[in-house]
Amino acid sequence: MSSEKWEGYSGLLLEMIRVAGCEVGDEVEVERPDGSRFRGLLMSKTELSAENIIVIKLPNGYNVGVAVDPSCRIRRIAPGRRPAFTRPPTPPQKPDLPRVRVIGTGGTIASRVDYRTGAVRPAISSEDLVSLVPELYDVAYVEAEVLLSVYSEDLTVKEWERIAERVYQVVREGGRGVVLTHGTDTMHYTAAALSFALQRPPVPIVLVGAQRSSDRPSSDAATNLIAAVWTAARAPFGEVVLAMHSWHSDDEVAIHRGTRVVKMHTSSRNAFRSVNAGPLALYRSGSLEILDADYHPRGLDGFVYAPGFSDRAALVKFYPSMGPQILEYLEASGFRGVVIEGTGLGHVARRWIPVIRRLTDSGFFVGMCSQCRFGRVNMRVYNTGRDLLAAGVTQLEDMLPEVALVKLMWTLSRVGDLEGVRELMLRPIAGEIGARILPEVACNWTTRS
Amino acid sequence: MSSEKWEGYSGLLLEMIRVAGCEVGDEVEVERPDGSRFRGLLMSKTELSAENIIVIKLPNGYNVGVAVDPSCRIRRIAPGRRPAFTRPPTPPQKPDLPRVRVIGTGGTIASRVDYRTGAVRPAISSEDLVSLVPELYDVAYVEAEVLLSVYSEDLTVKEWERIAERVYQVVREGGRGVVLTHGTDTMHYTAAALSFALQRPPVPIVLVGAQRSSDRPSSDAATNLIAAVWTAARAPFGEVVLAMHSWHSDDEVAIHRGTRVVKMHTSSRNAFRSVNAGPLALYRSGSLEILDADYHPRGLDGFVYAPGFSDRAALVKFYPSMGPQILEYLEASGFRGVVIEGTGLGHVARRWIPVIRRLTDSGFFVGMCSQCRFGRVNMRVYNTGRDLLAAGVTQLEDMLPEVALVKLMWTLSRVGDLEGVRELMLRPIAGEIGARILPEVACNWTTRS
Repeated sequence: MSSEKWEGYSGLLLEMIRVAGCEVGDEVEVERPDGSRFRGLLMSKTELSAENIIVIKLPNGYNVGVAVDPSCRIRRIAPGRRPAFTRPPTPPQKPDLPRVRVIGTGGTIASRVDYRTGAVRPAISSEDLVSLVPELYDVAYVEAEVLLSVYSEDLTVKEWERIAERVYQVVREGGRGVVLTHGTDTMHYTAAALSFALQRPPVPIVLVGAQRSSDRPSSDAATNLIAAVWTAARAPFGEVVLAMHSWHSDDEVAIHRGTRVVKMHTSSRNAFRSVNAGPLALYRSGSLEILDADYHPRGLDGFVYAPGFSDRAALVKFYPSMGPQILEYLEASGFRGVVIEGTGLGHVARRWIPVIRRLTDSGFFVGMCSQCRFGRVNMRVYNTGRDLLAAGVTQLEDMLPEVALVKLMWTLSRVGDLEGVRELMLRPIAGEIGARILPEVACNWTTRS
Repeated sequence: MSSEKWEGYSGLLLEMIRVAGCEVGDEVEVERPDGSRFRGLLMSKTELSAENIIVIKLPNGYNVGVAVDPSCRIRRIAPGRRPAFTRPPTPPQKPDLPRVRVIGTGGTIASRVDYRTGAVRPAISSEDLVSLVPELYDVAYVEAEVLLSVYSEDLTVKEWERIAERVYQVVREGGRGVVLTHGTDTMHYTAAALSFALQRPPVPIVLVGAQRSSDRPSSDAATNLIAAVWTAARAPFGEVVLAMHSWHSDDEVAIHRGTRVVKMHTSSRNAFRSVNAGPLALYRSGSLEILDADYHPRGLDGFVYAPGFSDRAALVKFYPSMGPQILEYLEASGFRGVVIEGTGLGHVARRWIPVIRRLTDSGFFVGMCSQCRFGRVNMRVYNTGRDLLAAGVTQLEDMLPEVALVKLMWTLSRVGDLEGVRELMLRPIAGEIGARILPEVACNWTTRS
């Protein structure tokens, strides 16, 4: 068992690190017998990694594990930056600026790297936030709080309900807007969930994340956060949106509608994009260009708080050779509905049809989206589609599969019978179903860069 | 029971159609009491659709079902175009041109709409093909055959094996190249399957489809087919590729590598695109621009025929609240491995880790891709990723999830032990694993059109 200074290290490697006078957080260099060198910050490691692996955070921000044996050399280059949390003097906030509440739910943004664990720690206080991103001082009067502190892939319907409830309270207390900092992995699922739970809100509810942590030179955390707080404070709309770095330039942030956005790249800063729709707006250094004038304006008209999500809805991606038994398994496990990512215009193998017929007859919901990332399902073109419709499948138009799943979770928590579920799934609630548009217009990617 | 003239119609509606003197295939008009009119070709329908629905193919090529009651009026506008299969005189093929074998497996391309069923009938003979697309007369000496005639969503590993075997025979018989006409829904899965089963082939093996059937003015069938036959006859590479309409202009067809392409739009003609790589080449009216010079050249060097696919591999897309029980279900059902579409850089909820640990300990393969459409998994950035790796997950680099699934099906048919499966999954076979590239370069979509 090693102390915090050498957390996770043991055996011979721990001894080598101690002899070299290094602690977690120090800048170190490992040299291997073949002459290769790795320089960076010594990180702690999890118990699960092999004993001879030393973990180093490289200057590009990524961690590498280097296998070390006695023929390697470990050197201490410089002491660690602990305690780095001494913050520079921060100007006092300006109480005459619009008030924006920032609610932390976890994730990389507006957090600091914890040099003990290598993890990103969502340590937000109002003071931390303004000291990390001093530009906020001129944008809004920021009040910050931490609601959750989890990796976004660990979020469940329970956390969605907690977030929705807290946002509802904050909105009712007043203020010009709400910002939610969130891990990017499932931020689009949460954005969809809030879109159904908080319909036509009186102020902007802006989810924001970062693809690169604040300690990396290429971090998008500050840019995204400023755009999110600016949008919450000043945008003319009352909608659930997601603010993330855009494509064109370093200072542009796209404001996506919460039911029209997915994470489309594992690592790039412009990972998020609107699908089957354009972004609602673009933010550039202190100004917002509205791209879709058909938004819900600020104000209390029509605000609906409709919380509640069921985890008895599933998402299934179809592939060749896949059998329909998965649907029977879901029904037997207590699920009450499924969104299928079919092929093309919304198809699965014909041998699925009798199983689907039996399930829908028993009140189980089967909705169809497409695994093609763009476009609308249309199940009246081919026989298979028509037969699936006749077997009780609901075609979910141009809803994104992830959004359709979230909507089904929301729908199943409030409607019992299949006809009611079908009706609510097809009723547009928060921009999740679009008008029919020409596919060539909607599909705005190019074949070459 | 109605005859072929009124296939699928019964009861009152059948009577109304007969009284109006209409048959399937005729141009008809339905007028409803509210004044709305639907004009198009009368189509047959399946037994499953409701008795009062009349199915009409609109001029835009889509079928609509219109509910009819006695207050509606049905009129015959013009007789059907039966028998439309009388083909114009075709010039004889030129035996001195390169020989290309076209193998039909089903799908919309190079087929005719059957006005009885509304379905697309893959009725290819060499003569049909050249009469449908007379430009082929100057491109190659085409020999055509029909191997399969199924919707592509109904294909299984068994059909992949049949296709691979037939292509292998044809390649060994000689000729300059092979073209496979294929339904677009799962064409990219088949392309991946052939890439692993027919490695470094001596001639181009070109899959081709159409997004719009030949009877529609906007059909891409002829353009795609000419490009495919041209590529098979003259391209300098011996690879499995997929030829489909490109973005830029009406006469450009992108030639995608078989392991790097997905169907990305439900309906647009440029639905296919290369992901995490550019296309291998672009075809424009009689010329081929090679974009990736690092191709396998024509010739017998290194040709490997490695058929065989197991259907004991599954693809699972993770979503928030999803439990790990699905993996236990798969193992209990006899599956031997799974490709997970995780979030972001390759994550699932932490509560999956003990289940994954138990499964990999028992020899079950768990591979990780991302549900982000673009980018590479990297499970060393966050604790969850590192712990998943420690639990035995194999990170599948920048392989597309669909391709990783196909590769796992192929791998499981030839390797028994988990270490062997892991090794083969990570060994590059047919361009399915790319070198690390800058994400900004790889992700060439734009936020605005």
